[in-house]
Amino acid sequence: MTLAIDFGDIQAAAQRLAGVAHRTPVLTSRTADALTGARLFFKCENLQRMGAFKFRGAYNALAQFDEAQRRAGVIAFSSGNHAQAIALSARLLGMPSVIVMPGDAPPIKIAATRDYQEGQRGSEVVLYDRYREDREAIGRRIAHERGMTLIPPYDHPHVMAGQGTAALELIEQAGPLDALVVCVGGGGLISGCAVAATHLLPAIAVHGVEPEAGNDTQLSLARGEIVSIDVPNTIADGAQTQSSGRLTFPVIRSLVKSVVTASDAALVRTMRFMAGRMKLVVEPTGCLAAAAVLEGTLDLRGQRVGVVLSGGNVDLKSFAQWIAAE
Amino acid sequence: MTLAIDFGDIQAAAQRLAGVAHRTPVLTSRTADALTGARLFFKCENLQRMGAFKFRGAYNALAQFDEAQRRAGVIAFSSGNHAQAIALSARLLGMPSVIVMPGDAPPIKIAATRDYQEGQRGSEVVLYDRYREDREAIGRRIAHERGMTLIPPYDHPHVMAGQGTAALELIEQAGPLDALVVCVGGGGLISGCAVAATHLLPAIAVHGVEPEAGNDTQLSLARGEIVSIDVPNTIADGAQTQSSGRLTFPVIRSLVKSVVTASDAALVRTMRFMAGRMKLVVEPTGCLAAAAVLEGTLDLRGQRVGVVLSGGNVDLKSFAQWIAAE
Repeated sequence: MTLAIDFGDIQAAAQRLAGVAHRTPVLTSRTADALTGARLFFKCENLQRMGAFKFRGAYNALAQFDEAQRRAGVIAFSSGNHAQAIALSARLLGMPSVIVMPGDAPPIKIAATRDYQEGQRGSEVVLYDRYREDREAIGRRIAHERGMTLIPPYDHPHVMAGQGTAALELIEQAGPLDALVVCVGGGGLISGCAVAATHLLPAIAVHGVEPEAGNDTQLSLARGEIVSIDVPNTIADGAQTQSSGRLTFPVIRSLVKSVVTASDAALVRTMRFMAGRMKLVVEPTGCLAAAAVLEGTLDLRGQRVGVVLSGGNVDLKSFAQWIAAE
Repeated sequence: MTLAIDFGDIQAAAQRLAGVAHRTPVLTSRTADALTGARLFFKCENLQRMGAFKFRGAYNALAQFDEAQRRAGVIAFSSGNHAQAIALSARLLGMPSVIVMPGDAPPIKIAATRDYQEGQRGSEVVLYDRYREDREAIGRRIAHERGMTLIPPYDHPHVMAGQGTAALELIEQAGPLDALVVCVGGGGLISGCAVAATHLLPAIAVHGVEPEAGNDTQLSLARGEIVSIDVPNTIADGAQTQSSGRLTFPVIRSLVKSVVTASDAALVRTMRFMAGRMKLVVEPTGCLAAAAVLEGTLDLRGQRVGVVLSGGNVDLKSFAQWIAAE
């Protein structure tokens, strides 16, 4: 079966993003290396524009709109970072955006989305109840009424290709890697990264990390088909997805070596390590990959390992409580 | 009058530090630019080894010890980051270190200093009461008894030259700057940075920022001689110095355009901005320069401005309280 994207799509995305997205730094920590016995390279997508890797995929998708699509604008539904990414990308490209967000998303994400839309005519945020309403149905209705193009948060080839530029850059910055560890929500980031990494380094082992409470991809791989679960209850709000995508799952199945999980308690410990030792604010979802590495869920001793810190958009009051806990 | 260091000393320091110190990233923030009307380049020394710029000066000093000095080792007195910097540099260079620290320094800094000494024979931390004892006398006594070389936290040409590499790198990374804003404790960082910056960019305006409660350098500049004050009461524990140094003050007087102050409340607001918007953990002292810029104390509209974030070593419980406050 042909996968939804290939390496050429990621290279083209990298060209579209050049000078627009940040080339985020790669940080190392001797403490983390000593803990794990590996040589770790942390790709800091929490320092990306709007605070998460999602900007890459959103901008790559919107930059490919034709003139009619640009005029009508874009609509998106998202648990948070995709919303901000679309809002910002749309404003940069001068088009209206409608963002359909869960009403219980972190307040910082709702406010930031509205900030990013500011000054762009025709842009707005529409809130819904994620336990009672179907966000996809709402999105489709508005898209139909206003002629807007719907860009889903992960299951779209342009989004996947954009996210893959994070791994492309990381390998350019860190050099050869034995393994790459990436968080898994709907699979947009890991599928793009897996295509980039396995093209550049055919022997690399790509590992995914899901929240313990939301291991739908792990279940799907075991069963050999996409499994859908209830909305998982986890602090990793960016990975509260119910299933992998129809485009992302085949990529994960073909190119990802294993998918493991991290508990919320492990995410809190990892947030504290990131703040205390690496001086970084990383949101719970952004800690998934690092948690599996630092807690020894993945045994990576002796290996050169890329670890994607996917985002840093977290409510500061919640963050303060997490890092202050014993 | 000849200054204690020149640009050649900083270039030599940069060579000693190559491959040992991190070349820390320079981050930008469109939000910060919009707030200030300037184009800001934040030099992230909170992401330096041991969490602060102090590693640069300490390593540059210890790397120049002769064989007899290496055997006997180094002694240092410090409010915190210089301690960790000396402890780590000494271990990397295989020599004993004795660190004389105030007993009320942040626990994270005392613990980290001991961690950095681990495995190095002859190394220890000696605590003293900073309101009743004279740290310099304690340091001199131990230095005499054990034949150790005392490296002061700022008033030493090798330390000053090492710190100056932060500005050298920043200008290499960001390109030409109209202004450079640096925190001021004893003046080691700003004196080194001023020598580097004014050599590379003769028209640059270098500004220093002190805690409001500890404006000894501002007073000294006004009086034209070094003024000593009581130990200032401020959350900027890295800038609780009582006076500039005999070597640093002449550099500041010659090359620094202005010294302004930031209140503790401004430092807390800046810590919150750094965490929420820039996803960085910056300690109070490390926020001094950014506070003066973000709060408009310095009017830098239309300018390209380097801002040094000097360190990130802060007790997480205190940090959590500061960023969670309204």
